[in-house]
Amino acid sequence: MEKIRVIQWGLGNMGKGMVDMLLTKEGVEVVGGIERRLEKPMDLGVYLGREKMGIPVSANPQEIVERTEPDVCILAIHSFVRGVVEEISFLVSRGIQVITIAEEMAYPFVTEPKLSREIDELAKVHGVTVLGTGVNPGFILDTLIIQLSLGVRRVDSIRARRVNDLSPFGKTVMEEQGVGRTVEEFTQGVKDGTIYGHVGFLQSIPMVAKALGLSYDEIVQTREPIVSKVRRETPEVVVEAGNVAGCNHTAVALKDGKPVITLEHPQQVRPDLEGIGTGDYIEIFGDPNLSMVITPEVPGGIGTIAAAVNVIPLVLQAAPGLKTMADLPVAHAIMDDFRNHI
Amino acid sequence: MEKIRVIQWGLGNMGKGMVDMLLTKEGVEVVGGIERRLEKPMDLGVYLGREKMGIPVSANPQEIVERTEPDVCILAIHSFVRGVVEEISFLVSRGIQVITIAEEMAYPFVTEPKLSREIDELAKVHGVTVLGTGVNPGFILDTLIIQLSLGVRRVDSIRARRVNDLSPFGKTVMEEQGVGRTVEEFTQGVKDGTIYGHVGFLQSIPMVAKALGLSYDEIVQTREPIVSKVRRETPEVVVEAGNVAGCNHTAVALKDGKPVITLEHPQQVRPDLEGIGTGDYIEIFGDPNLSMVITPEVPGGIGTIAAAVNVIPLVLQAAPGLKTMADLPVAHAIMDDFRNHI
Repeated sequence: MEKIRVIQWGLGNMGKGMVDMLLTKEGVEVVGGIERRLEKPMDLGVYLGREKMGIPVSANPQEIVERTEPDVCILAIHSFVRGVVEEISFLVSRGIQVITIAEEMAYPFVTEPKLSREIDELAKVHGVTVLGTGVNPGFILDTLIIQLSLGVRRVDSIRARRVNDLSPFGKTVMEEQGVGRTVEEFTQGVKDGTIYGHVGFLQSIPMVAKALGLSYDEIVQTREPIVSKVRRETPEVVVEAGNVAGCNHTAVALKDGKPVITLEHPQQVRPDLEGIGTGDYIEIFGDPNLSMVITPEVPGGIGTIAAAVNVIPLVLQAAPGLKTMADLPVAHAIMDDFRNHI
Repeated sequence: MEKIRVIQWGLGNMGKGMVDMLLTKEGVEVVGGIERRLEKPMDLGVYLGREKMGIPVSANPQEIVERTEPDVCILAIHSFVRGVVEEISFLVSRGIQVITIAEEMAYPFVTEPKLSREIDELAKVHGVTVLGTGVNPGFILDTLIIQLSLGVRRVDSIRARRVNDLSPFGKTVMEEQGVGRTVEEFTQGVKDGTIYGHVGFLQSIPMVAKALGLSYDEIVQTREPIVSKVRRETPEVVVEAGNVAGCNHTAVALKDGKPVITLEHPQQVRPDLEGIGTGDYIEIFGDPNLSMVITPEVPGGIGTIAAAVNVIPLVLQAAPGLKTMADLPVAHAIMDDFRNHI
């Protein structure tokens, strides 16, 4: 069997990280890249500021796909279904398997039922799989909760919390989370939708609920400013004491007014400056209770890169259609030849 | 679709627990029980010391299978492949899906390659699935390690530790673990094989290694007495200070003399009396590191009962053959109708 041929669509921080990870792995090769911001085609090595690699990168998907005949594409360009649906259709119609880290694609069936159905049908027609993955949604606040419930006889409710440090992230993330703003600016930003916190609760909650057979009436989200008591500084932003260090975004699925699934994701810069440790926390209340802690948290960037690359063999052999992490066999790191897992 | 019809083979503590759990679940029904120790057929309710349930229990498998026409059997009679292979053949030949908590069956391919092949072939001929599961092996020290590696780019080594309290268990377990013995008696028991600690390391290690593509040259096991500094007492046993409270059983997979996978399972009565907390601990060393803690540990008995019942829908729709937990989609608790998951 030949090496698995992968193209990377989107060469920002995530896309570059996936290329670097793929270069360390056996049985899989990067054969091309697509980056819309590119003005003219170039070599991937040159694009990355290194030696020539003989791998083409272009803004033209058609050109790359025809030149490289890939088996699978990792799509890392946008958070929303509507921002990736055209690209997915393009790829699927050419018989290319798709792994995307678009957060909404982790479980798009509730927020985008029509587009989900269309993607699923198209993928089935062309005999390929489309999967949304990433560290969150895709892993910590959904797949891992589902997995941990295996040893539980009765689940009454679930509470999970992912506490991370936004410091490594850039300007866009700081703006989306309201970092460095005054409390008034934050409140206004939440109102007008420019500050929206985490994209993923409306995917993770229905994914967990469907898997475990839990029902709920509504999902209530809150976005509160994390007001810093101290001055916090990163290369990207300065937060004065009294201003906003991040967004405490929570989502609660309620049944008859009682919480069934509560997900909390306070994201901020330098939580350590107020003695707040980072970590992933999952509690299942039922028979028996279960309490899990991962400290520090599975890092967002690296975790997403790893998840997208590690699932390649599972996607290549999954049944055609639009799938979620809960549909696939247990996904995991791969240290030998990727082809051994097919 | 009719309710899923389950027979419970083996009605000891585990089997009784599975029956009780199944009775609380929708879309699935216990239609019969098999218990070899029974002198004459009786009603399951009467056997459990309750009201009549109209469900037959017998020492005769043929009789129960013919009367009840089950879809699936949960087999809870023995720890070893050789202790369940005849029963599995009997069930599989009659087109009945098999879930067993026999520890060795969680990943029998290395310790029992010939029997594994035979079971796999027979299951394929008859179009049914055979799965070994349980809390450990089957979940904490293998499936969960595999799952947690998803967010890791490079795995160098793994160390996991399951610390539990043996107090709820009976005489057999106390003897297998050497609880209450003198250090001399313990050492002799390990030598002559009467004290053997945990059954599962020789399954969990190859299961994790295969999934992650890690290689090793050999597995080295050690069984050390946990010598109590204080007097410990349970309804079953008394441990005088200076005597053995349990067995610290470890297994290390070595590659070129270096540990690749280290699993530790110190099992003892009343660890709390020396201030030792119970818990499940998983560390992955690589890029990045990961450190997970579940405290207290997922309880052994309840966790095994839950795992065996919760996997029923996955087993009913798995491809025919001898499968492991790593082959199936992510397994989980089920709070709605079991038939919704098929």
